[in-house]
Amino acid sequence: MTLRLAVIGAGIMGADHARIIAEDLPGATLQVICDASAERARAVAEAHGAADVATDPEAVIARPDVDAVLIASPDETHAPLTLACIAADRPVLCEKPLAPGSAACIEVMEAEIAAGKRLEQLGFMRRFDGSYTEMKAALDGGQIGRALMMHNFHRNVDSPGSWFTGPMAITNSASHEFDVVRFVLGTDYATISAFQPKRSDDMVAPVMMVLETAAGQLVNIEINNNAAYGYDVRGELVGEAGSVMMSTPVYATYNSQLAHAERYAADWRRRYAEAYRLQNRAFLDFAVTGRPSAIAASAWDGYAAAVAGEAGVKALASGAKAPVEMMAKPDFYS
Amino acid sequence: MTLRLAVIGAGIMGADHARIIAEDLPGATLQVICDASAERARAVAEAHGAADVATDPEAVIARPDVDAVLIASPDETHAPLTLACIAADRPVLCEKPLAPGSAACIEVMEAEIAAGKRLEQLGFMRRFDGSYTEMKAALDGGQIGRALMMHNFHRNVDSPGSWFTGPMAITNSASHEFDVVRFVLGTDYATISAFQPKRSDDMVAPVMMVLETAAGQLVNIEINNNAAYGYDVRGELVGEAGSVMMSTPVYATYNSQLAHAERYAADWRRRYAEAYRLQNRAFLDFAVTGRPSAIAASAWDGYAAAVAGEAGVKALASGAKAPVEMMAKPDFYS
Amino acid sequence: MTLRLAVIGAGIMGADHARIIAEDLPGATLQVICDASAERARAVAEAHGAADVATDPEAVIARPDVDAVLIASPDETHAPLTLACIAADRPVLCEKPLAPGSAACIEVMEAEIAAGKRLEQLGFMRRFDGSYTEMKAALDGGQIGRALMMHNFHRNVDSPGSWFTGPMAITNSASHEFDVVRFVLGTDYATISAFQPKRSDDMVAPVMMVLETAAGQLVNIEINNNAAYGYDVRGELVGEAGSVMMSTPVYATYNSQLAHAERYAADWRRRYAEAYRLQNRAFLDFAVTGRPSAIAASAWDGYAAAVAGEAGVKALASGAKAPVEMMAKPDFYS
Amino acid sequence: MTLRLAVIGAGIMGADHARIIAEDLPGATLQVICDASAERARAVAEAHGAADVATDPEAVIARPDVDAVLIASPDETHAPLTLACIAADRPVLCEKPLAPGSAACIEVMEAEIAAGKRLEQLGFMRRFDGSYTEMKAALDGGQIGRALMMHNFHRNVDSPGSWFTGPMAITNSASHEFDVVRFVLGTDYATISAFQPKRSDDMVAPVMMVLETAAGQLVNIEINNNAAYGYDVRGELVGEAGSVMMSTPVYATYNSQLAHAERYAADWRRRYAEAYRLQNRAFLDFAVTGRPSAIAASAWDGYAAAVAGEAGVKALASGAKAPVEMMAKPDFYS
Repeated sequence: MTLRLAVIGAGIMGADHARIIAEDLPGATLQVICDASAERARAVAEAHGAADVATDPEAVIARPDVDAVLIASPDETHAPLTLACIAADRPVLCEKPLAPGSAACIEVMEAEIAAGKRLEQLGFMRRFDGSYTEMKAALDGGQIGRALMMHNFHRNVDSPGSWFTGPMAITNSASHEFDVVRFVLGTDYATISAFQPKRSDDMVAPVMMVLETAAGQLVNIEINNNAAYGYDVRGELVGEAGSVMMSTPVYATYNSQLAHAERYAADWRRRYAEAYRLQNRAFLDFAVTGRPSAIAASAWDGYAAAVAGEAGVKALASGAKAPVEMMAKPDFYS
Repeated sequence: MTLRLAVIGAGIMGADHARIIAEDLPGATLQVICDASAERARAVAEAHGAADVATDPEAVIARPDVDAVLIASPDETHAPLTLACIAADRPVLCEKPLAPGSAACIEVMEAEIAAGKRLEQLGFMRRFDGSYTEMKAALDGGQIGRALMMHNFHRNVDSPGSWFTGPMAITNSASHEFDVVRFVLGTDYATISAFQPKRSDDMVAPVMMVLETAAGQLVNIEINNNAAYGYDVRGELVGEAGSVMMSTPVYATYNSQLAHAERYAADWRRRYAEAYRLQNRAFLDFAVTGRPSAIAASAWDGYAAAVAGEAGVKALASGAKAPVEMMAKPDFYS
Repeated sequence: MTLRLAVIGAGIMGADHARIIAEDLPGATLQVICDASAERARAVAEAHGAADVATDPEAVIARPDVDAVLIASPDETHAPLTLACIAADRPVLCEKPLAPGSAACIEVMEAEIAAGKRLEQLGFMRRFDGSYTEMKAALDGGQIGRALMMHNFHRNVDSPGSWFTGPMAITNSASHEFDVVRFVLGTDYATISAFQPKRSDDMVAPVMMVLETAAGQLVNIEINNNAAYGYDVRGELVGEAGSVMMSTPVYATYNSQLAHAERYAADWRRRYAEAYRLQNRAFLDFAVTGRPSAIAASAWDGYAAAVAGEAGVKALASGAKAPVEMMAKPDFYS
Repeated sequence: MTLRLAVIGAGIMGADHARIIAEDLPGATLQVICDASAERARAVAEAHGAADVATDPEAVIARPDVDAVLIASPDETHAPLTLACIAADRPVLCEKPLAPGSAACIEVMEAEIAAGKRLEQLGFMRRFDGSYTEMKAALDGGQIGRALMMHNFHRNVDSPGSWFTGPMAITNSASHEFDVVRFVLGTDYATISAFQPKRSDDMVAPVMMVLETAAGQLVNIEINNNAAYGYDVRGELVGEAGSVMMSTPVYATYNSQLAHAERYAADWRRRYAEAYRLQNRAFLDFAVTGRPSAIAASAWDGYAAAVAGEAGVKALASGAKAPVEMMAKPDFYS
């Protein structure tokens, strides 16, 4: 069976998803590319051989010739469009975040539970990245003893625009770390503390967070949206008997001008290209079989990341440790 | 259009090719898995959802429901089966080597030229590996000045079996290096010298080769089939103004027992997984469009590697520098 | 002039200091080795050609044939013996910490100020280590912009004994970091927060501290006394335009058993061998000229580290951010 | 006893030796700095507190207030001045090469043998470098099995001047490699082959040499005097069970402008600073005790390097493998 996909949102991420489906995965075709800008939709459709274009996402989701949906439209549309997919019984891979806040995430979970079947896969693609899967395998395999700490560094060249604020560093950028740490450690957060140095200019300063998990581990997250020098994500999982350090895969290094240099990418796409491909492959499988991926994030995971982010914003504002309080996990997501 | 593929040979490489087609690439289906062992063919067919199995490769190649062929059967069958594909007008991706010797490579070229169209893509997958493409891009982009030298190190944990001999290190293992160096430098070889240290046991000792190119560059190739410690391929392209060094992409490193360790794979498949995928994607495109990939190796490149290998064997036996003498390049391959 | 030195304490550190003086530096001779154990003193004296041995440190400090003193005796003796050196007008290089608490550090400062001249150099040898001097040079030279954060990781194979406690990780182990960060950043601390994960055994768990400096920077310090895998000190200075990462100098890496390994030392001495030599050279110069090294730590720096440690212990106990409150800096130390 | 040293030659190397004696080693004083330029001698003497200056090296060597001699004058003076030291019974540390050719080396050996005692230490300081001592320790300790190959890369930013020629790359630059490989492997050379790519300009092109040892190992030496990008020395010792790779010790790496960079020095002095110090310390010990260092190079080793260089020049000129033929080793040097 060949899955007929709709891609909603034809910006950078939507175009990337379309390309992955068209060039890098078997089993699916691009049925519709939908964007508020018909022109943008058409450009992506032509580049990757999609059958049709559209501008109304709700209508697209309801089309009988659409088997599954990929949401890559602006953040605030994620929850409503996901709800539409659930209502239409369409498996959906939604870019993160699931919703701007935890309350909206609960609505999505309630709808999915009411539908009686799992339909949502959330785009926390790092779960499919080799660095994190190796960390998790080393931990689960007993190679480093019990987990004690996880250090995470997330650095961008610069923040996406002047509308980007310090709290957004926590709710938006850090959500990948909030999620993937839970994935690797297999536990939830109990508290969060947040710190921020002062910059000499008006750019958003880094945020440093320290989280305590329910199992008594420490998690360190640095989000530096204006690191200037490159896109750089690092991490280390420290166990009682050893540690695993994330390494950025590179194919070549360069000798010139008195330096031996490893090059940074300017953004995240090269670093996570393979993770996106594996995530999307898992989604196609989920859409065909109805069995959710054991690795991929669910609406519950989207909720957990949202709760951590909300607590982090409070901690940063108050300068004091804040609890990370989650609802009881519905059996549906176990 | 969905391409119907036959995979001939259901050993390690054939199974890998079948998996790539089934899981990692759009646009093709597995029509037949063919192997001398029907059982082995059936195992691969079941694992990857192939439509049919067979034991007679010549018959498979001639089947009307087969659009293109992937040859991964034993080395000595490569040339005859490639000739059968050419005779049947089937685009073929043949694992290296094209043939055990340069004479048989010439036969393949003659058949292809007689057919009047390019049908052969040779499985020198390293041309699609990021290390070599970055080297080539740095050279072509003028970042390191004119090329002076290329150093290549190829190490396996151990040689494939007791039937493996020193000359095979040159004709078989080194063929990847002979090819990819020509690809990166864009030139041909003029001479080859070969050296071999003595081992204390009866395993095949390393071979060290020094080649001079027609353009006056030096190429160093170490083939160490019994390096014991891991599968390790390294290289460096040295220009007049700088150099590019190959790096093995890794996702994690490990701290334990007084060591910070980067792990080696036990064989080549993890290192070149992405190169195989890109190579096979280029083949599917070639099979559909008839336009050969600008990157992939042709029968001419298979001939060039065979000639270098034959000269290397002579150089090793004589202990003296041997010329690498190639026929004039047919216009057909320009 | 050849300086006649007394080394007080003939344990691991005292023996190392004696060796450095005897083998690695010009300008000084070992006049006395003093230890509570005459036997231990004699062993070091014989190994490094010292003229005499003794067991009473106060008497040694007062000897007319002793020009300067190196204190490497147990921590609790540091302050009293330093006071004796000041009273006897002997330049003294005292191993860290200057005193178990900040109050005793103030006494030492008062004595030195009363003496009217600088006599104390404190053994925070990391200030002489290439990693920190490169960080400081990059910062002072404007290469990475204004400093925003400094991340510090200090890991030992295991803690020195069962008497070692969590607060000691802060007052004892972390003092090197407290000092060297002040040295690199050129600022003082305003607050400290401290966190600790739970271990599954009864060993001392790591401590993670986050400090805010008076200039609005963030400093992260992990002290992991039972890291198991090796002696490993890492750090990174993050500026607004780039960062400098500490690298452990190694001379060789090893390929074996499917791993490429860089070896860790089992303790700190190999890592800081050159720093100790440079520190001691600076001390000899100070003892001869009376001009304190611009790099070396003073009693004031010892006080600053003690205050940070005391605040850190409070922060860990309370689970809340604690202020780091220092007395006004005496002009004497400016 | 304090050794009174004469340093002959006050250029870069002579000044460095004077600095090491004055600042970094106990047990010696600078008695005389001698240079054809009195001005240059005076500058070095003042910088490092030497007692006297002179312009006539032969007279300096004969002075009764000179206990030992450090020769860092131009290459062609090394052998005659060493002979003068032997005649005057002065232990001498002579910069490499011992002589421009093997014949002159034999003269030095004959003089030393006639003197009946070892007086010469040759400045092949790499024997004291941690990279080579770790390689040797791993080999001697059985960690990598029997030695099979040694790869050596020696790269300078640019050649010292227009007078520098291709053969000099072999006789002059390569002598360090010729020596240190013999030291690590504990064997002598049997044959040498030499190759040279073509540069597009008139700078000296790299030379690639392959040597076979008497014990059947292969040694690869690349000398690239105009590598442009930095001073870079690399190496690898490959055994039957594993390998040891040379690593350049660095204290920091730098993140800026889309690159993670490790910096190269512009010349050799930073890389081998510690090796020079250890070499000179061994020389002081030799001068005092009369017992030659077990590590340091002797006149015999200088002869061996000269013979390899002469054979290398022949091999490069002829384009064919040349024998490396040495006289029988005098018992005196065993």
